[in-house]
Amino acid sequence: MNQSKTYTFGILTSGGDAPGMNSCIRAAVRMATFRDARMVGISNGFEGLINGEFRPLGPRDVGGILQRGGTMLQTRRSDRFREPKGQREAIRNINEAGIDGLVVIGGDGSLRGAHTLAGQGVRVVGVPASIDNDIWGTNMSIGVDTALNTIMEAVDKLRDTASSHARAFLVETMGRGSGYLAMMAGIVCGAEMVLVPEVQLTVEDIAEAVEDAYRRGKTHAIIVVAEGASPRAADLAKMLDDMDIGFSTRVTILGHIQRGGSPTAFDRMLAARMGARAIDALIEGQSDVMTALQGRTIELLPLEEVIANLRPADLEYYHMAKMLAR
Amino acid sequence: MNQSKTYTFGILTSGGDAPGMNSCIRAAVRMATFRDARMVGISNGFEGLINGEFRPLGPRDVGGILQRGGTMLQTRRSDRFREPKGQREAIRNINEAGIDGLVVIGGDGSLRGAHTLAGQGVRVVGVPASIDNDIWGTNMSIGVDTALNTIMEAVDKLRDTASSHARAFLVETMGRGSGYLAMMAGIVCGAEMVLVPEVQLTVEDIAEAVEDAYRRGKTHAIIVVAEGASPRAADLAKMLDDMDIGFSTRVTILGHIQRGGSPTAFDRMLAARMGARAIDALIEGQSDVMTALQGRTIELLPLEEVIANLRPADLEYYHMAKMLAR
Amino acid sequence: MNQSKTYTFGILTSGGDAPGMNSCIRAAVRMATFRDARMVGISNGFEGLINGEFRPLGPRDVGGILQRGGTMLQTRRSDRFREPKGQREAIRNINEAGIDGLVVIGGDGSLRGAHTLAGQGVRVVGVPASIDNDIWGTNMSIGVDTALNTIMEAVDKLRDTASSHARAFLVETMGRGSGYLAMMAGIVCGAEMVLVPEVQLTVEDIAEAVEDAYRRGKTHAIIVVAEGASPRAADLAKMLDDMDIGFSTRVTILGHIQRGGSPTAFDRMLAARMGARAIDALIEGQSDVMTALQGRTIELLPLEEVIANLRPADLEYYHMAKMLAR
Amino acid sequence: MNQSKTYTFGILTSGGDAPGMNSCIRAAVRMATFRDARMVGISNGFEGLINGEFRPLGPRDVGGILQRGGTMLQTRRSDRFREPKGQREAIRNINEAGIDGLVVIGGDGSLRGAHTLAGQGVRVVGVPASIDNDIWGTNMSIGVDTALNTIMEAVDKLRDTASSHARAFLVETMGRGSGYLAMMAGIVCGAEMVLVPEVQLTVEDIAEAVEDAYRRGKTHAIIVVAEGASPRAADLAKMLDDMDIGFSTRVTILGHIQRGGSPTAFDRMLAARMGARAIDALIEGQSDVMTALQGRTIELLPLEEVIANLRPADLEYYHMAKMLAR
Repeated sequence: MNQSKTYTFGILTSGGDAPGMNSCIRAAVRMATFRDARMVGISNGFEGLINGEFRPLGPRDVGGILQRGGTMLQTRRSDRFREPKGQREAIRNINEAGIDGLVVIGGDGSLRGAHTLAGQGVRVVGVPASIDNDIWGTNMSIGVDTALNTIMEAVDKLRDTASSHARAFLVETMGRGSGYLAMMAGIVCGAEMVLVPEVQLTVEDIAEAVEDAYRRGKTHAIIVVAEGASPRAADLAKMLDDMDIGFSTRVTILGHIQRGGSPTAFDRMLAARMGARAIDALIEGQSDVMTALQGRTIELLPLEEVIANLRPADLEYYHMAKMLAR
Repeated sequence: MNQSKTYTFGILTSGGDAPGMNSCIRAAVRMATFRDARMVGISNGFEGLINGEFRPLGPRDVGGILQRGGTMLQTRRSDRFREPKGQREAIRNINEAGIDGLVVIGGDGSLRGAHTLAGQGVRVVGVPASIDNDIWGTNMSIGVDTALNTIMEAVDKLRDTASSHARAFLVETMGRGSGYLAMMAGIVCGAEMVLVPEVQLTVEDIAEAVEDAYRRGKTHAIIVVAEGASPRAADLAKMLDDMDIGFSTRVTILGHIQRGGSPTAFDRMLAARMGARAIDALIEGQSDVMTALQGRTIELLPLEEVIANLRPADLEYYHMAKMLAR
Repeated sequence: MNQSKTYTFGILTSGGDAPGMNSCIRAAVRMATFRDARMVGISNGFEGLINGEFRPLGPRDVGGILQRGGTMLQTRRSDRFREPKGQREAIRNINEAGIDGLVVIGGDGSLRGAHTLAGQGVRVVGVPASIDNDIWGTNMSIGVDTALNTIMEAVDKLRDTASSHARAFLVETMGRGSGYLAMMAGIVCGAEMVLVPEVQLTVEDIAEAVEDAYRRGKTHAIIVVAEGASPRAADLAKMLDDMDIGFSTRVTILGHIQRGGSPTAFDRMLAARMGARAIDALIEGQSDVMTALQGRTIELLPLEEVIANLRPADLEYYHMAKMLAR
Repeated sequence: MNQSKTYTFGILTSGGDAPGMNSCIRAAVRMATFRDARMVGISNGFEGLINGEFRPLGPRDVGGILQRGGTMLQTRRSDRFREPKGQREAIRNINEAGIDGLVVIGGDGSLRGAHTLAGQGVRVVGVPASIDNDIWGTNMSIGVDTALNTIMEAVDKLRDTASSHARAFLVETMGRGSGYLAMMAGIVCGAEMVLVPEVQLTVEDIAEAVEDAYRRGKTHAIIVVAEGASPRAADLAKMLDDMDIGFSTRVTILGHIQRGGSPTAFDRMLAARMGARAIDALIEGQSDVMTALQGRTIELLPLEEVIANLRPADLEYYHMAKMLAR
């Protein structure tokens, strides 16, 4: 892009929120200031883009948000943005506000939305944020590390109390389509078993494995169950209770606490690097790309590629969890 | 008791475990040492008393347990102790081990067991430990403060994410017979509503209150639901989702993570004071009493009185939670 | 006061900030709304009172502050308020704004300021907030419990690493005039020694006690040192290193992190109760009093009495820390 | 190595301890069991190797250590191991115990010790653990992520209280030779300034930068100072207080709390992967190598190369911290 011009860039967060989004907004705004560009914050995701919920964001406006969960720009679902009419309104608002490029922070659906805008001539850079770590092309998405630590701290507390009772504790984590969080939690918490959508087990298999742990002398069993595993944790607990496996079951459903909390150092750093890189990419004239962590560096990948591919399951972690549980 | 004799005291933990039990064991052992008494640790509660699971505990044996959740002596249910036969065996073991007095740390059922032993001539001091704070006569039981902070930290995370969506978050806390934790959590977390066993509401009442919050412009609603409230959180969520209240619902069930975790300063201090006081009470010749926090001091109350009375519901906190939610 | 009138009350925070101040502001504002009174927030303490930094505070203005450390109204030192001229300006501003009563949240100096205003005809209720717990008449001041837990979590981390080295760790806590935090921390952290301004020890005494712990086989020693102890932690470490006591020393100075952090459940609850009580006291026509926790209830004490008395040192805790360290 | 033989491997931790060492020990032991090998735990590092402080470690011996800071095998400095005589005794003990290979977990000095043993015919694999992240060849060492989060949580607390006062807070972090932790902390905490050994600034430069922040209207300044920066934090504070820079200074010295604490998910995972890889490397017949995180994979690097190279300073993070502080 033209280095002598003063650019104006927009930024929005979309989809399920993820810890670290604020750190990303802050870095983008500060980097833009550093590059003599102006920033416009767009509230409520694509819905706010259609409604024209715009406001200027200067370096002082993003002070004190670094340690906050959630997103200062809010997110919202937008059915209207799925229709050509909504997209047209969004693009008209972008043009009227003199926005030269857009940073879209969010998960898979948000990146699809970003790609749609790029296809209609808007300069867009996507930033992956999704606690499920289900986005193709980046080692880690913003929010994953915080969510994993939240799960871990909860399971650590369970383990304190677990050792005094012959009990099987079932802990349901997020992850409808991806068992990433559950598998990683299994390893870092030392769970006795992990149930994920990627690996189908019968209730009989599960019962036998738990019973076997009981016979080997384990005083308790912690089972991490991804939301997308079948059956779900609450139903599985009832089935196991009917099967006399040695342990009685107790259920914890973590739910949305996994989306909240002050972001970890890792998430703040990843978000800061991606936010800063997104602004530089826009200034370099890039569009229709996503920032991606590959090894130690932040690369740019075509959004088309990102949304066309499914992130493969990291089943090595599934096997590692199993091996370490012995 | 006789000051020139070297006493031997036993200590056990019983019932659901509570953070701070270890701090209480440590203080009792160190105080006994200070008073030139010997301590015997009894594993697995009354069941261990029947089985003779005894071991000497010196000051070094209780080093490094202060910050640990759970109990180093384990707890277990004991059906055998409900029968005269089991009680006889327990008492024979106490006598054979030369135990001059017993410290029993636990909840309501454990204190009843302690009173039973006292009625048969065993010198016993009870220490109240129960995260539900449902024991009569003491302002606070060991474990309550930690459990409340655990709930609070979980709800704080929910609030981060809550503000971005028109959602009602239902959080189920422990408390089958008592809404204490839920009411207190409602105040310290700023919940929009609290549901407890002590106050019966119809689903229609609840739906109306949530809808009203929606109409007044609240962007979300956090509802803390005690385990003993009717209907339970998961069922209530389904009912509300069928009723079109403006918000869609999400459920978190905290479960046994409320029993774990490193104890707070308050619980460590309360446990230390009660553990030390229990030993002094035994040396003074007291029996069939419980240590109780009243104001700033640790008093001794007859166990008979403790177990004969139901702790009244602190409904002033229910009203306070309501008033502050406006 | 007159029940049919719509009252307007002001609220300010002053002195060193303490976790829980926001919870107190929130409760006062919500209680005022509940009682049909209006609230005015005064920024920057007495300095803001002189400058007229006033703004209306409604129930929505205090949403989302419950979990935040610090104070949304800020605090500041005010030399001008010590002079009659400053006080006159403050009172004129109070009258011009139609303020019928004032809630002053802060420590000893702030309560003196509140008493001064009351002496000149302003209706004032003080609320004790000071992490040092050095205010006479209330069992606990707002912020103490959070500060104590912050210290405890830091020392717990030290203990993890301490056991691998023959080291003495000196941890300096706040408390220039009061050893309260250091003594309590000594108990809840299981420190080997506590140094407080209330008990004078020579460096030789200290060295001997540490050396004795070394000889008894302790692998490490944690020494909690109040800021007001003599010598201070950093100087003491140098002296001990010159004395060959078996351990080498390492120093941690916690500093102002003790004033920050999200308030604990205890502090949020204490602050909520005191904030609500302060508003009710003003409506009842009370003035020149402080809310005080006595046992389980919030009482009102004359400010004159509060500031005329020194809180006695809780030396029983000093002895308890010593006894439990064996 | 010979796949039909039952191998015996030793494991020790050495140098300054780092959170995650226990997770690494656990993974190595469980992986060895999985591969039908035996494990021997060596206490107190190289000193224990000389003294023959050996004990068998089975899968149950490493249960429940995952969440603990410190190291279950302890560490100690060993002057004797620097001498040929000490090394000879160590090697004789290794041979007498039938140890076929050794896992050495520790920092730079420990890896040098490992290389020395390898040079004398002992099969050794090193695992990098050092909160300073000062080891060449691996993106991250075990313990860094936990230490960084510990610093971050402390500074987050400071920021709560900082905004109410015109103060400059100086926070000293570990890092005698490396400013890594300080630079990363500067970014994730949003510090106004970072002082590291790699970049020399005069006190005048520092004072001017702080004064400039004051003039630009910053209400406070947080300055992260690595232990190896000159002057050190406590001295710098005194100098700044003498220079009238608009802010008064307050000092926090974090000290050894940075070495403790329950390891983060990242550290537990990194440690688990490295511990498992170290065992596999020994079985594959590798020696004189270190496990290294490169991108997403764990590689093996020659120890000779690791100890011959200095990790270059990541000054891009220094500049990023500066840019984001605006």
